[in-house]
This record gives sequence, structure tokens and C-alpha cells, in this order.
Amino acid sequence: MKREILLYGDSRSNADILYFGGIFIPDPFFAFTLNGERCALLSPLELGRAKKHSHFDRIFDYAEIKKASSKVKDFCGALIQILQKCRKKRLLVPSAFPAFALDILRSEGFDVAVEPGEIFPERSVKKRREVAEIEKANFVAAAGFSLVEEILRESVVEAEKLHYSGRILTSEYLRAQIERASLELGADAVSTIAAAGDQACDPHECGHGPIRPRSLIVVDIFPRMRSSGYFGDMTRTFIKGIPSEAQFKMVDSVLKAQAKGLSSIKAGVLGSDVHAAVAGSLLSDGYATLREKTFWSGFFHSTGHGIGLEVHEAPSLGPLGGKLVAGNVVTVEPGLYYRGVGACRIEDNVLVQKNGARMLSEYHYNWIIE
Amino acid sequence: MKREILLYGDSRSNADILYFGGIFIPDPFFAFTLNGERCALLSPLELGRAKKHSHFDRIFDYAEIKKASSKVKDFCGALIQILQKCRKKRLLVPSAFPAFALDILRSEGFDVAVEPGEIFPERSVKKRREVAEIEKANFVAAAGFSLVEEILRESVVEAEKLHYSGRILTSEYLRAQIERASLELGADAVSTIAAAGDQACDPHECGHGPIRPRSLIVVDIFPRMRSSGYFGDMTRTFIKGIPSEAQFKMVDSVLKAQAKGLSSIKAGVLGSDVHAAVAGSLLSDGYATLREKTFWSGFFHSTGHGIGLEVHEAPSLGPLGGKLVAGNVVTVEPGLYYRGVGACRIEDNVLVQKNGARMLSEYHYNWIIE
Repeated sequence: MKREILLYGDSRSNADILYFGGIFIPDPFFAFTLNGERCALLSPLELGRAKKHSHFDRIFDYAEIKKASSKVKDFCGALIQILQKCRKKRLLVPSAFPAFALDILRSEGFDVAVEPGEIFPERSVKKRREVAEIEKANFVAAAGFSLVEEILRESVVEAEKLHYSGRILTSEYLRAQIERASLELGADAVSTIAAAGDQACDPHECGHGPIRPRSLIVVDIFPRMRSSGYFGDMTRTFIKGIPSEAQFKMVDSVLKAQAKGLSSIKAGVLGSDVHAAVAGSLLSDGYATLREKTFWSGFFHSTGHGIGLEVHEAPSLGPLGGKLVAGNVVTVEPGLYYRGVGACRIEDNVLVQKNGARMLSEYHYNWIIE
Repeated sequence: MKREILLYGDSRSNADILYFGGIFIPDPFFAFTLNGERCALLSPLELGRAKKHSHFDRIFDYAEIKKASSKVKDFCGALIQILQKCRKKRLLVPSAFPAFALDILRSEGFDVAVEPGEIFPERSVKKRREVAEIEKANFVAAAGFSLVEEILRESVVEAEKLHYSGRILTSEYLRAQIERASLELGADAVSTIAAAGDQACDPHECGHGPIRPRSLIVVDIFPRMRSSGYFGDMTRTFIKGIPSEAQFKMVDSVLKAQAKGLSSIKAGVLGSDVHAAVAGSLLSDGYATLREKTFWSGFFHSTGHGIGLEVHEAPSLGPLGGKLVAGNVVTVEPGLYYRGVGACRIEDNVLVQKNGARMLSEYHYNWIIE
């Protein structure tokens, strides 16, 4: 007998359960298959909404089950009762399934297998509707870049700082402007990066304090559409003023490596080969990756990752990346990080197709703002 | 030998790992204790930032470990190597620890116990600094109510709809204004509820479409401070125009029940007793809780929950709520939901103290806007 799939989580942070149920539910709950039907066990708080707006075929009312049986003490107890009544003993859970429920189910005699890969491998092959949502989210990211450019253009240099509309321009200000614009376009942008100079050499540093002229500014925006939950993910690097030769060469090399990566993508290619092409391009330009004292320099992250209901999902364009298939949506985002020079990362998203890749993100690559 | 604590998660969605490490890391990672030191296993992406800004005493560099040993294929492999080198075999993991890592660790001979309760019970006893962050977040929520009030006050009624600055006033508009104001005050407000009429009878419905005059509008705002990760959580109910007698009585009863709940809180009291006092107050006013067809009516959720790095955390003010201790921070949020009349919920946060409760949220209770 086939194993029934069992999920647990809240559908804001757990993309599998959002994909399965098609509804945002803020507290963790159980969702599962039962003879081909999509089921959920929900509290009265969510009942009405889930009946109207979800993919669930069948919704179990936790409060009713609990009222009917004094043996049921919690959601896990109610779930066990449902599964026992349906004589379902064999379950498949995703790798992130919580330990507490795994141990309880096994101790109650269930045969629970943990899926080591993706529980819904089909999530990485995007439907037309999903591709459109990712494009929308990238449109929001592009609006952010446009805002940053405008602010940098109108900023003036004074005492080695940038001044914009009467105050010193900071990372925090850029970030707030980007995220506010994002909200107005129907997307949540959280943890947006607008980091300049050596700060950006920590790739996930959001940036803080004044932005100086002639320092590279990495702007990484990954908005999530509020209505659908799909992410976009784009990065551009800017500079206000004339770059040094080292900065110029570095940005040039990243742009070249990204173009190489983008042109190497099509169905059937290995993610690891795309990564090798990008890493090779940077290395052949003289950019080595190494650890100096406590920091890494060079190109020390993957070339890219899948994107969808999670900002990082399958497939990978890293050293272990497997075969790409038509319908995958991936980021291509080489970067170089050298303290003293600064950082550069350029990121776009593409749809993998039979004979190549279709861009799902659009923003120009002019990076020098005078 | 004492068990070492082992955590896995990203510190945006996993509050335990944020509490333990004190740094936002967007991708899941392992964090653990080792002979009294706080440790993390991190990718080069996070290394620099974590060394500068986290609570970790010791950080293991995944890329270095992988480079040094061909047997290490992934983070879990690197973790196992670290633990084996330190001869640590006995581990304690939280209830949400992922199944894949649990099974791998056990198959490698580790003795892994799953903590059924809270892995850091001290999280529910707030320090002064934490209380101050929750207050700040509630200040942000209060700014949202003030904005809603102002918009409702300036709205005009035309053809049974509210019009504000030239357009029809909708839930979406209110929500966007609240969340924008929240961003400007340094907090992320996501999933904000601004739901009117019968829509609000689904307690987690965010609200959509035009807001009508003389319908109860439930506004539930739970902003998260960007710098610290602490949440606030407040709800007010408004109406534009003169309420019906049924609406008036319902709001009055919720206000009375909330006051009863608030005054019953002090260290040593059971959460279940606070809930019983609140539920009893509503029932004695004639508001019964029951399931009609597919929907629940009345008061069908808990009176409240702990709040901190999660918007819902321990302790509970529900039917199973245990003893409150000084330092707990809880919401008190009775609500009534009757299709046809509408919904009302009023929510504040308090700090549990030896002899009573200190309010951590402040906004008036005038709800009728003419």
C-alpha cells in the first residue's frame, strides 16, 4: 500500500504545506493525503477560511474531534485517531518534519519514512502561473533598483559622505525606501541588503551606517508576493562616483561570469557544470577564492538556487548541483568579495527551457552613477 | 554526562535558534552547546557577520571542514564529525528538530532525546530588555490604530460605502497604511488583519474589499522589531457610524471580559483559570459558543498566549494553560464572532508580576467613530 504523505508546519514559513494547501495559515497544523484527497486538521480559528479558499478536499475540525473523545489531548492525538480510523499505518514525511511528532507516531506503531529529498519534487518544475508570479516579484525588485539609482543620482558628496535631501545617506534609508516601495506593489521585502564597502564582503550583511562615495554598493532584493507567496530575487551593484581600476575590473569580471552562466543553462545541463563555468570564468580573470585569517575572499558561494515559494529551493547551481530540467527557475548570481576593494554580486532569475534559458528578471547593468 | 543541546533552523522563523545565537541567519544551520560554550556550524556566507555580531563563543567553518575531509558531504556530516571528535554522544533536541537529522544522528549511534516542552523554558521569563522590545513593538501597533482611526474619521459615507480621499475605502488600503507606518517605525507587520463585517468572523481572515459603514472592523496588528526580532500584538475593534444594539452589547461584553481577564492575572494563577474567567464572563452575558453548520460562533479560541521572539509562544491562557510566573508576557484577547452581527476582539499584552499584571500595550478603547 502506498504511503500517505504527512506534513506539519505553518504555511508562511513552510513552503511544502503552502504548496499543498494553497492557503496562508499562521500557526502550525497537520496536512496529509488520504486515498488521494488533500486533508487538513484545523482549529476553529482557520476552519471557515480554509473551507472557502484552500486546496483542501477535506477538513477535520480539531475542536469537534476533541469534544467527541476525552482521549484526544492535542493535535497529534487527533491526527492519530483520524489515521487509525482510516487504517493508515504507512506514512511519508518531509525531511523537516518535527521530531516530536515523528517519535510519537512511531511509538504508536506507525511506519514513518522520512523523504531525504523533496517531498514534492514537482515544486521545482514551475507552471505558467508560478512563472508569472516570480516575474511579478522581480518587477517589484526592479522598482527597488530604480529607486536606489534615483536616490544615488540625486545625492551629493560632502566630506566623503553622500547627502540626500538634507541628510546623510545610509544603508538603512535605502533599505527602508526599497521595502516601502515593495509593500506598495503588493510584496513583502524582508532582510533586503543595501551594503557598501567592506560590509558587503559578508554576503548576508544587510548594511548599516553612511554610504560613502566610490564604494561598491550591493543591493539584493527578494520580495515575496503577498497574495501568492512567490519570491523574486535580484541583485545589482552600484557605485556613486568614479570607480577605481580594481573595482572596475571586479565588476566587469562578475558581469562576464554571469553572462557565461546564463548562456550555459538549458535542460539537461548539470547545475554543477553551470557553477564550474562561472567559477572558472572568475578564476581565469585572476580572482582566487581563499580563506585569509578568519574570512573568505573571492567567490565562496553557489552560483545560484531554485526560487519559488521559498527564496532558496531546489535545484542547486552549486558544486553538487544535479541535472536541470525544463521548468526549473533558478537564480544566477556570481559574486566577488575582497576586503579593501569591496564586493560585487549580480543576480537574475531564469526559466530553464529545452534549448536555453528565458530571463524572468529585467533591469539594466549600468552600475556607475556620477 | 549532561546532554548537549542541538538546534537546527534559520533564525528568522526559528525563535529558539535566534534566542540562542542572537543573530538573524536566513538559511538553516546547526547550533549547539559544547561543554558550556555556544557553537554554530556556518557556511562562509555567514562567518564574518556571526563572528562580529552573535552570541556564539565558537564558530565552525563548514567550508574548511569539508575541504579537510572527503568524507564530509553536507552540514550533517560535518556536525557528526565535530561531535565525534568531542566524544559527545548524548544530545537533546527541541520538538521541532527535523526528522532527517534525527534519523541520521540515531543511525550513527547518537543517543538523541526530544524535549517535549520548551528547550529554553527561560524564554518565557522575560528580561527587562525583552520587555522593553515588546513595548516598542506595541507602540508601533498603536501607531497603526491611530492611523486607522484618522482614516475612518475622515471617511465619508456614500451609497453604503466609505470613501476616503477620493476612493472607496478597503481592507487592503487600511492594511497597506498600517504596514507602511510600521516599516517606518522599524518593524515588519505581516498578515495584519483589517477585516470588517462577517469576514472578521474568521479570526485569521486578513480582510478584503470595501469596508461598509456600521460594520464592526477588527484590526489586529502584530509588528516585529527589525533589529531585535521581538513581537507586539494588539487588537482593537472599530465602527464607522452608529452601532446596532447587538453590536453595542457584543463590544461591551468583550471589553468587560478583557478587563476581568486582565485583573485576574498575577504570578501563581493558572492560565486555564484566566481563560475560564474570561469565557465565563462572556457566557454570563448570554454569548454561547457553538458550531452551526460548518462554522463556529461565540468565543472559540484561547484567551491569550505568550509573546516574544514568536508571536505565539508559551505560556498559554487557554483551557490547558499552566501556572503563570513573574516575567511571563501574555496577550489577553477575548473575542466574539457571530455571523450577521460581526466580530469583536480586543487584545493587549501584560507582564505577569508578583501581585498583578503590568500593561505593555497602550491604546484607548473608544471604538465608535462618527
